[in-house]
Amino acid sequence: MASVNRQWLLASRPVGFPQASDFRLAETPVPKPGPDQMLVRTLWLSVDPYMRGRMSDRKSYAAPVPINGVLEGGTVARVEASNLPKFKAGAIVESRFGWQDYALSDGKGVRIVDPSLAPVQTALFVLGMPGLTAYFGLLDIGQAKPGETVLVSGAAGAVGSLAGQIAKIIGARAVGIAGGADKVRHVVKDLGFDAAFDYKAARDSGAAYYSAEIGRLCPQGVDVYFDNVGGEITDAAFIHLNDRARVAVCGQISQYNAEQPELGPRLLGQLVVKRARAEGFLVFQFASRYAEGLNRMAEWLKAGKLKYRETITEGLEHAPGAFMSMLRGGNVGKALVKVADG
Amino acid sequence: MASVNRQWLLASRPVGFPQASDFRLAETPVPKPGPDQMLVRTLWLSVDPYMRGRMSDRKSYAAPVPINGVLEGGTVARVEASNLPKFKAGAIVESRFGWQDYALSDGKGVRIVDPSLAPVQTALFVLGMPGLTAYFGLLDIGQAKPGETVLVSGAAGAVGSLAGQIAKIIGARAVGIAGGADKVRHVVKDLGFDAAFDYKAARDSGAAYYSAEIGRLCPQGVDVYFDNVGGEITDAAFIHLNDRARVAVCGQISQYNAEQPELGPRLLGQLVVKRARAEGFLVFQFASRYAEGLNRMAEWLKAGKLKYRETITEGLEHAPGAFMSMLRGGNVGKALVKVADG
Repeated sequence: MASVNRQWLLASRPVGFPQASDFRLAETPVPKPGPDQMLVRTLWLSVDPYMRGRMSDRKSYAAPVPINGVLEGGTVARVEASNLPKFKAGAIVESRFGWQDYALSDGKGVRIVDPSLAPVQTALFVLGMPGLTAYFGLLDIGQAKPGETVLVSGAAGAVGSLAGQIAKIIGARAVGIAGGADKVRHVVKDLGFDAAFDYKAARDSGAAYYSAEIGRLCPQGVDVYFDNVGGEITDAAFIHLNDRARVAVCGQISQYNAEQPELGPRLLGQLVVKRARAEGFLVFQFASRYAEGLNRMAEWLKAGKLKYRETITEGLEHAPGAFMSMLRGGNVGKALVKVADG
Repeated sequence: MASVNRQWLLASRPVGFPQASDFRLAETPVPKPGPDQMLVRTLWLSVDPYMRGRMSDRKSYAAPVPINGVLEGGTVARVEASNLPKFKAGAIVESRFGWQDYALSDGKGVRIVDPSLAPVQTALFVLGMPGLTAYFGLLDIGQAKPGETVLVSGAAGAVGSLAGQIAKIIGARAVGIAGGADKVRHVVKDLGFDAAFDYKAARDSGAAYYSAEIGRLCPQGVDVYFDNVGGEITDAAFIHLNDRARVAVCGQISQYNAEQPELGPRLLGQLVVKRARAEGFLVFQFASRYAEGLNRMAEWLKAGKLKYRETITEGLEHAPGAFMSMLRGGNVGKALVKVADG
């Protein structure tokens, strides 16, 4: 076991898009677990859009990471040493241990991962937070039903790729929006969406192009819009909402690096004439039903009904680059940092 | 009985705010009822914000009034002659007979009004469409609960004045937004809202003033925002939404005369971090429950729990002026045109 714990600290709050100088790599001694603690070794670190919010000190649903604090993040780790009866050395666990090689834990909020079920890093994807977000967002917030048209933005991303596949599994039509021809191909050919378009193919007016493409691919209109991106793509999606449509507002990644709120056409009037609903959600509001969601996702995964792809960056030292690339849409499927061999 | 039927026709589709030249007064003979018809005499005409939508040919939930068509509108009328067993001459009825002195009807969608219950024009207000809109919008769409803070825009208008009073009746806190010191006084002193502010008192930045006032009057945040106006007032209201807040999007009167969609700050990100919901609605989606709503409103009215005020314009010839004044906020409570004595 190494004696040094590498930690990525928040050096400064990003102004606009994060830069390398906003992150600082520190080295501290690997801590020793106390009587009611365990020491874990990070194997996989998840980089996700929501982390951009934690880097800002704007009022939000969660406290920001303090300056010089260890960056937050979901991880899969191995128990190195434990004074907790429930967690044996060698066990694989999932929790929010942050951007570091080692962490101490009292076991609260830590889930034991079954390595026989699927590769352990799926606990950060299909069988973890993104999977639960897609599951509850589509079925509970979005109330997607068989035969309906489900439009998914960020369709090649971790949550979007699953939301569209769950739509297919329940018998809905899934249409994706993704950035780049490769992602569009992946979404349709590999993941089984009915159709998708490349928003980056817009020439002049983004909004007009997006609206035309959504109209072409959703000739029956949009019953559920699963939104990961916000901005002009979402403006266009609202135009095609059906009567009594539901918008599951999962993320707004196009807006996360804006220093000033971006202006856009006002959308509430569309909700009135369509008697439609837009609802924001955070996965933790479904905490009491995680077991249900994970069981369903595991069943579908075992049955071969859920495909997934990972974009893996090797080495904790490259975590900021992996994070910034993900914010730019550089990932297909789940963006992960492999920190150590399992 | 007069032999001439005056009718207000849509002369041209308004560009921006409607003008007198968009309306044309025609005179036609009073028609005679056929075997399965009745003839009604308009007593009261309701002018409401939604009619602005009917004057445009933009895609909406209802077909537009055709050019040279009689303008649509809710009315209370007296049966003059009837070949329908259910409707006796002399009966008072409510339906959408339009901007005219006389109309033929086959009785479909016509409700008999009980003059002993309340003044008959309340069938266009507390005991009619605005009352039902406030009732279902606040309690079903808004899911208002005792102890919560309900913020109402357009609080001195027909729907808003009732929404705030229903909030009080169920034990919630009601805060109003209205235009002018007189309206604010009316809302608090006469209607019993807990507090209200005058959005017209803003000096420089409307948005900053509105937000400061909402923050001052809703120190516990906003649980339900009942929105009749949209625009900058609504932008400010979103800032103060509580976790799991509901926005009942009833109307967006500030936007109805815009030729181009007005730009504003994007609001969906606020829905995510607050896990909040914005839902548009139209009263007719509750048609199967109108009896429930009218019974509750009638009970509260008889018990003295619902106050109301009317802004009455005398004479059908002044209907366009009454309509345009209402669009500018010239009314307190319900804007009505008195067409004939009952």
